[in-house]
Amino acid sequence: MKLSEIGEFGFIDRVSALFKDLSLPEYIGIGDDCAIIPYNEEEDYVVTTDLLIEDIHFFKDLIGPEQLGYKSLAVNLSDVAAMGARPIGSFLSIGIHSDTELAYLDLFLKGYRQLSKKYHVPLLGGDTTQSGKQFVINVVVIGTCRKGEARLRSMAQNKDSICVTGHLGDSAGGLEALLRKLSQTELTKTLIRRHNLPEPHVSEGLWLAQHEGVHAMMDISDGISSDLSHILRTSEKSAIVDLNKIPVSDELKKVAVSQAWDLDKLVTSGGEDYVLLCTIKDGSFEEVSMGFREAFDRNLFQIGEIVVGGSGINWVKNGKKVSFNQHGFDHFSV
Amino acid sequence: MKLSEIGEFGFIDRVSALFKDLSLPEYIGIGDDCAIIPYNEEEDYVVTTDLLIEDIHFFKDLIGPEQLGYKSLAVNLSDVAAMGARPIGSFLSIGIHSDTELAYLDLFLKGYRQLSKKYHVPLLGGDTTQSGKQFVINVVVIGTCRKGEARLRSMAQNKDSICVTGHLGDSAGGLEALLRKLSQTELTKTLIRRHNLPEPHVSEGLWLAQHEGVHAMMDISDGISSDLSHILRTSEKSAIVDLNKIPVSDELKKVAVSQAWDLDKLVTSGGEDYVLLCTIKDGSFEEVSMGFREAFDRNLFQIGEIVVGGSGINWVKNGKKVSFNQHGFDHFSV
Repeated sequence: MKLSEIGEFGFIDRVSALFKDLSLPEYIGIGDDCAIIPYNEEEDYVVTTDLLIEDIHFFKDLIGPEQLGYKSLAVNLSDVAAMGARPIGSFLSIGIHSDTELAYLDLFLKGYRQLSKKYHVPLLGGDTTQSGKQFVINVVVIGTCRKGEARLRSMAQNKDSICVTGHLGDSAGGLEALLRKLSQTELTKTLIRRHNLPEPHVSEGLWLAQHEGVHAMMDISDGISSDLSHILRTSEKSAIVDLNKIPVSDELKKVAVSQAWDLDKLVTSGGEDYVLLCTIKDGSFEEVSMGFREAFDRNLFQIGEIVVGGSGINWVKNGKKVSFNQHGFDHFSV
Repeated sequence: MKLSEIGEFGFIDRVSALFKDLSLPEYIGIGDDCAIIPYNEEEDYVVTTDLLIEDIHFFKDLIGPEQLGYKSLAVNLSDVAAMGARPIGSFLSIGIHSDTELAYLDLFLKGYRQLSKKYHVPLLGGDTTQSGKQFVINVVVIGTCRKGEARLRSMAQNKDSICVTGHLGDSAGGLEALLRKLSQTELTKTLIRRHNLPEPHVSEGLWLAQHEGVHAMMDISDGISSDLSHILRTSEKSAIVDLNKIPVSDELKKVAVSQAWDLDKLVTSGGEDYVLLCTIKDGSFEEVSMGFREAFDRNLFQIGEIVVGGSGINWVKNGKKVSFNQHGFDHFSV
């Protein structure tokens, strides 16, 4: 049997089962945005790691070295944010061809450093090695959160509001604009910037984790269709999501109209937005969203509700049930 | 300028300088086998990460999947051992072609799990993704050690004994046997096993760290010529090393004679032995080595002495100074 037949998530389940008997009660391991390990009496550590490979996760002709360095750290900071934790340090491993120009690497490091400085995340170590043709990047980020207060995917409750901290689909729109070589307008440039330079919602994650009413949390990396499914599976719940309520930027709406893109597909299946997806206790949304608006001068968007019964995500549009076949990007699906 | 012109260690120095102003006083970062971050009042955490790339670090026709899984974890456990720390958890990221047979991956995981179980190191997380042609592996291991008692490369003192916890050169001999397709005898099979299935000196590292007289410590991954140079540079010392005192296995001696290999080159420049290199306070070697022999039923080998003045490693053979041009493997050297 080939790996492609069971897919990325099938393989992760396989690994998880194989190592289950070695797990320790005070550690939370495979299956969330980060693992959790004990720190001191008040805090836990969270740890995340992401492997990025040229021509799979990025293409050198679509992203510059400085943006790539920035984005490599950003996607890991987003995983820490999704736990409601504060990043405290990173590790950067790179595999690169020895013919690579130092100027390229210096720009990569400049972008990585820019975000390190912004979030006060020192570079604590890593590894440097030769690779074949492909540039390989592995980033680890460690963070801290108040003991027992990390937000897991499994914490969604019946009747929770399903919320996102920003627009969906911009990053996928930016990638489309790059792949289709659309002319560089203010609109397409904005979408491309959101694809190549995503802003991790670190402050938003920390703020949300201070509120008891915020239950499950994760980041949107594979697209909400795939990501929300992880929350539903681990929380053993279903969801109703109203497509009309998914927040879409004016820039994406305009470009989608001009290019005749399927906007619903883009916002549900397009990944890499790196905004946070969270579920909020029944009756608490108004209070949390008001506080969120005061703190960030932006809206927290309610897009649906957690329910018991049914299966997976039940999509609604214009008051009617609709069905989708598209799924978030599964790295090994055929 | 190309990366190859400044080499791996030149590049690490460049990264280290660039991020220096972001460092925090309670964290020890780039430049040792592991980074150190605070844990509770009695302990620190250590963290190490290693990136392994097919056709650079391993060749599928020279190492089987089960051995590769074992070795991927072993080399990281060795880094934790080198700090005098106890491994407590690992993270495994793999990038692999979707055409890969599941049976291959299952064997890889079996080998990884075997060592995880032996050292009670749960798998806490990781990442799984598609790669191009090359199999890419990144392992992170976290460990704990008593606060302030981690052994750094910078801790060597004048007149320290320079010691190693096992034979050198076996792994390099095993690699040569594989590359030259030597006939499989008991001797070559032993060397190949030491190359493909190195035993990390975790217990030895923990034992040594309990002794105040043990100063600097690191593991032999690139060859003692290169590795000892890191201790000397960070400790601002020099060394005298007696080639006659470097412990060499009977197996390697016999194969080297039969193949007319340059044994001195192999034991000083051949890497991947994953034994520990440490420096022990002047006058304490006898006591520490006696305890070591009692604990492990093996010798701790004294091969030289730390000195002030001079430059780098001064090699001695048969009572006379000798010079070497060979260096440990620098991934980017031309």
